[in-house]
Amino acid sequence: MPLTPRFASRLSDIEPFRVVEVLTRATELEQQGRDIVHLGAGEPDFTTADPIVQAGRQALADGRTHYSQAGGIPQLREALSRWYQSEYGLVIDPGRIMVTPGASGALLLLSALLLNPGESMLLPDPGYPCNRHFMRLVEGRGDLVAVSAESGFQLDSDLVGLHWSEGTVGALVASPANPTGGVLNREQLRGLSEAVRERSGYLIVDEIYHGLGFGVETPSVLDIDQDAYVINSFSKYFGMTGWRLGWLVAPAAAVPELEKLAQNLFISMSTMAQYAALAAFAPETREILDQRRDIFAQRRDFLLSELLKLGFEVPQCPDGAFYIYANIKRFANDSQQFCLDMLEQHGIAITPGADFGRNRASDYVRFSYTTGMDRIEEAVARMTRVLA
Amino acid sequence: MPLTPRFASRLSDIEPFRVVEVLTRATELEQQGRDIVHLGAGEPDFTTADPIVQAGRQALADGRTHYSQAGGIPQLREALSRWYQSEYGLVIDPGRIMVTPGASGALLLLSALLLNPGESMLLPDPGYPCNRHFMRLVEGRGDLVAVSAESGFQLDSDLVGLHWSEGTVGALVASPANPTGGVLNREQLRGLSEAVRERSGYLIVDEIYHGLGFGVETPSVLDIDQDAYVINSFSKYFGMTGWRLGWLVAPAAAVPELEKLAQNLFISMSTMAQYAALAAFAPETREILDQRRDIFAQRRDFLLSELLKLGFEVPQCPDGAFYIYANIKRFANDSQQFCLDMLEQHGIAITPGADFGRNRASDYVRFSYTTGMDRIEEAVARMTRVLA
Repeated sequence: MPLTPRFASRLSDIEPFRVVEVLTRATELEQQGRDIVHLGAGEPDFTTADPIVQAGRQALADGRTHYSQAGGIPQLREALSRWYQSEYGLVIDPGRIMVTPGASGALLLLSALLLNPGESMLLPDPGYPCNRHFMRLVEGRGDLVAVSAESGFQLDSDLVGLHWSEGTVGALVASPANPTGGVLNREQLRGLSEAVRERSGYLIVDEIYHGLGFGVETPSVLDIDQDAYVINSFSKYFGMTGWRLGWLVAPAAAVPELEKLAQNLFISMSTMAQYAALAAFAPETREILDQRRDIFAQRRDFLLSELLKLGFEVPQCPDGAFYIYANIKRFANDSQQFCLDMLEQHGIAITPGADFGRNRASDYVRFSYTTGMDRIEEAVARMTRVLA
Repeated sequence: MPLTPRFASRLSDIEPFRVVEVLTRATELEQQGRDIVHLGAGEPDFTTADPIVQAGRQALADGRTHYSQAGGIPQLREALSRWYQSEYGLVIDPGRIMVTPGASGALLLLSALLLNPGESMLLPDPGYPCNRHFMRLVEGRGDLVAVSAESGFQLDSDLVGLHWSEGTVGALVASPANPTGGVLNREQLRGLSEAVRERSGYLIVDEIYHGLGFGVETPSVLDIDQDAYVINSFSKYFGMTGWRLGWLVAPAAAVPELEKLAQNLFISMSTMAQYAALAAFAPETREILDQRRDIFAQRRDFLLSELLKLGFEVPQCPDGAFYIYANIKRFANDSQQFCLDMLEQHGIAITPGADFGRNRASDYVRFSYTTGMDRIEEAVARMTRVLA
């Protein structure tokens, strides 16, 4: 190649997923005949529920293969509005709900809408790593705020006050959170809403793990603050990762601007996937999804109890999602190396803390209980042999 | 809403599609019982070819509902590599081909990869309007270069030389082009490649209308310059608009950076759609696609000849895609108003030049021959009554 490649500066600030390296190595080991227990992936192990799959097949048979509206098909926006009514008792106009290509698409739209160059949003560290990269993409910045067990690994009003600076325009939090599974209750959401509102900022809440709460209430921020932006997804509770469908809820004034962005950046989402998603709300689908949620809860109970017995510390009770964020200091002082050892020597794939930020990342690993109970038991048996 | 919304500055530079206003009004008129001939849409009227639809339905039945690799499933990257071999006689390593969520996804990746804030790419005006908006998104800039019939409404080496400035990092052209249907031949591509290379810049060629050339050769820039970036799509020749699947070909050195971006920005494309796309290359599918191309050619021949008879001027022969870019100065001096009149008074939906840039936009309209011949004949009959 005669040209010396010279890529944009943002590339040096955007990090790859470290879990991909773990997964690549895991695949190599499997090809060598090794048995690997996968506790790394951030997606449900279940295939999409059959009523949704059948609706997708029917949509294709019906010729739903053309572009559709940049903000999503009206029927799906209306179904989501009804969802907020039935699940949360909230009245949300369908016109305030935009379908997006995954929650990833919603993060792109909101970063583009809200961040001028040099402006920033507060983000909890640890947290979903891509958040700050979307902000970097548009020459804004995610300001990582180290959060600890004392605040449930979440931002709170004190931290917002402490870290808000000249160019801060808002805060982005998640409930239930990745990687901790921690849930923000109504009081915590209210505190965040007030802290951000006092500063004329924007509050974004990532609610993509809603529906996967275990015996705790998972309130939507919209019940407290109708001006907040909500990001959600059909990937987790609804189990549609590979279909690439999410949504966002925005204040009415923002919607025309967001639709303009969506027209230009996406043209359309998968039309077939949107017709399939209409089946996600049917009672027979809900029954399957709720059974799966209960299976996640059982796995959580078992794995959490076994990890604690083995000597892992889990300072944040994982009340939702499908993750346990565990402190490994009893066993090692470098979680990246710990993950490699677990994989190479014991055939267990888990994610190092460094995938979620910089705050004590070397002390932590994330376990995803996105595999069957027999496999989780196998992982526990292997860990018991080496760690107990 | 108590907060005064204050959105990022880029929003005032990003324009909505004007054709959407035309389509919205067309829908209103249809709901009032009016018969509208649609010559506005930038997508084939055909439903996706049946072998692809059946492959999609099978992929769902097979449980292809999970995330897949951020760069695309290996089978599809390999199929695309074979496509370059069979169609162009080119050897392109599958590792240089990345599947993207539509050509839109490829434009996002390349804008993020190549443009620092304040840097720009040269773009022909008229051209696909979203190109400059992707660049604006990342705080770069698309520098619109007025192109005329003399250069086939394309950039050429003279124009590149004339408009290249301090912050210019490359040029993005399309062949066949939207809105003119003009095709760059080998010599033109070579001239552009050399002009950009001399300036150590990047050349991006949008080849999304490849496969829809009518009796002319449509060479890929990769046959001339293996360092060029190519954007392509399953939407147009392959007829898969609503599935949201495209691809790009990049120099090997850029691929790890692009994959890192794709991991963060997309996680994955639609997995089902990628398995479906594998059927796009089968002989029985190709037969359908080539028949459809021939239908587009017949429509082009008829509509072009009738428009010329009516007194439209078409300075660029539309050798590909499914567009005719016609000068209306014989009839009106404001194409936006002309389009509204055609819609309101005569029930014909066409796209005003302003959707494609600023260069003499008020003199031009774009006709899309993406509807059946009977409907095109109806439009011609209506135009004959008022314009002849």
